[in-house]
Amino acid sequence: MEKSVFKTVAVVGASGAVGRIILELLEEREFPAETFRFLSSARSAGTDLVFKNQDYVFEELTKDSFKGVDLVIASTPDDTAAEFLPYAVEAGAKVIDESGYWRMHEEVALVVPEINPEAALNAKGIIASPNCSTTQMVLAMKPLYDISPIRRVIVSTYQATSGAGLVGTEDLIHSSQARLQGEEYDYKVFKQPIAFNAIPQIGSHKQDGYTSEEMKMVNETRKILGDPNIMINATCVRIPVWNCHSESITIETETPISPEQAREAFAAFPGIEVIDDLETGQYPMPYNSDGSDEVYVGRIRKDISHPNGLTFWCVSDNLRKGAATNAVQIAELLNKHYK
Amino acid sequence: MEKSVFKTVAVVGASGAVGRIILELLEEREFPAETFRFLSSARSAGTDLVFKNQDYVFEELTKDSFKGVDLVIASTPDDTAAEFLPYAVEAGAKVIDESGYWRMHEEVALVVPEINPEAALNAKGIIASPNCSTTQMVLAMKPLYDISPIRRVIVSTYQATSGAGLVGTEDLIHSSQARLQGEEYDYKVFKQPIAFNAIPQIGSHKQDGYTSEEMKMVNETRKILGDPNIMINATCVRIPVWNCHSESITIETETPISPEQAREAFAAFPGIEVIDDLETGQYPMPYNSDGSDEVYVGRIRKDISHPNGLTFWCVSDNLRKGAATNAVQIAELLNKHYK
Repeated sequence: MEKSVFKTVAVVGASGAVGRIILELLEEREFPAETFRFLSSARSAGTDLVFKNQDYVFEELTKDSFKGVDLVIASTPDDTAAEFLPYAVEAGAKVIDESGYWRMHEEVALVVPEINPEAALNAKGIIASPNCSTTQMVLAMKPLYDISPIRRVIVSTYQATSGAGLVGTEDLIHSSQARLQGEEYDYKVFKQPIAFNAIPQIGSHKQDGYTSEEMKMVNETRKILGDPNIMINATCVRIPVWNCHSESITIETETPISPEQAREAFAAFPGIEVIDDLETGQYPMPYNSDGSDEVYVGRIRKDISHPNGLTFWCVSDNLRKGAATNAVQIAELLNKHYK
Repeated sequence: MEKSVFKTVAVVGASGAVGRIILELLEEREFPAETFRFLSSARSAGTDLVFKNQDYVFEELTKDSFKGVDLVIASTPDDTAAEFLPYAVEAGAKVIDESGYWRMHEEVALVVPEINPEAALNAKGIIASPNCSTTQMVLAMKPLYDISPIRRVIVSTYQATSGAGLVGTEDLIHSSQARLQGEEYDYKVFKQPIAFNAIPQIGSHKQDGYTSEEMKMVNETRKILGDPNIMINATCVRIPVWNCHSESITIETETPISPEQAREAFAAFPGIEVIDDLETGQYPMPYNSDGSDEVYVGRIRKDISHPNGLTFWCVSDNLRKGAATNAVQIAELLNKHYK
């Protein structure tokens, strides 16, 4: 096993949709540490889990949980992250946070390792992982941005129910079954029916008619690319797909980028894979992106409505690169750097 | 019953997804005619149907079918429309065509009655009804265009399986059932799985990386609005919804239109209904637009990425206003005019 600078690693929220995958990834990718600890809400505390063929018990998350912890990877609701992660920083741990709470705080680093690893390495406190819909878009933007600064983005999303947690996916499955049988279903998470429907709202109203999810795509993208001048217009839509977000993206760059240039730049960039042959029906789709750590790009073409425009389609597993994988990659980055 | 200028009306392709609704509408809206005839392929010829509580038999469509016919409403595959409709024109009938074949022919009128009724009235030959994804978008564009010319449109669609015909919807239902039960399913129409998936291709590759469906949205919109200079960039995506297309639309106008102005203009325009209150979760969705003849618009907001931009969400029943309703409205327009 690779040597770790982190003797004790604590995973917070390991029983959630993203948390479960963080555990899988730490196992699969053999993340090195002497001790792993698993922190959860009081409700789950005391229940068992198996990690790397060893038995563990969830410990209740308190403000004293982080003594002796070197690295924290947290995937919790915003209010939990707000309340407890400052104690982890105070206890001297490196903290990687999946929640939305800390991302836009000035002193917090917002990191996609392929784009701005230096932000993670220079971070004094919390290192936040972006919102799932941001991560795949900003990763796809970066190789283009490196050719010519992106001035404007118009994005419409096709987001999976897993983004609303395990219960989101249960809602989709059970409501679809009910609908096919002509039965009623009481939704647990969704306020509008998701079975065989499209809901043009994710999150709550944030500002100027845009939702919180849409404004995350605006503000987080600017912060990660370090460019407050990129103009971004997002429309976030939930569709009846249980995992993997899709995005229809149009960008305008300072100087034109041809589809061929873009295809080459995408293909050469870490974490991105190009699937792009319309003639033979080859393009990324949710059903064949599930379980993968890549961001897939296809339908790459000149935006015929603007001389400096480029349009493409982007799909990624929102629980993996959109969340768990990105967090674990940040942990690996820190481990490699401090070793 | 209202008097008709059309003594004999022939409906071609009345057993298809759109054809069935054309019959419903002719009944419901009491379209006046002395004689109705129903033409079909040789395969369906001889089978019975009931219309306005009377028994009819499908007659085989041949080049001699149109003798004595005053009005033809046709909803057929492109090749059928290409082969047979010229005989209808030759026989002196007014011809309303739902297929894609004739729309862009120079001598053919392409009509949305709320937008360009004069094109239908001046038509010498075939009057075509636009593609479903075009109709709802162009109708929503018109009241804005009347305030300030639209220079650019970026649209991403969320299209229902009913657009691929009755078998398209059967594919969705059966494949969803199979997927929920962990079984395989052999698709009849879709080349890619549609159950719990999103397919970023509708139609075949047409030009420059755009599909035929996407280029229909470009070319038909320009023709209907009579403005060849509007720049349009479309991404057409099939999602697992059985009826009603949704569209995420961003426009740029010559001078800015405020969301308030847009909301008023939409609300005042025939055929459009505004459902727009994000705070209380009010916006158009496929599940509550099914069976309606309106084009619903919501999520109306300033495009925060462009000073002259406006963004909105638009849903309509693609079998009705997107097809059958528009065709019957054209027939009603002609009847009213020539009376």
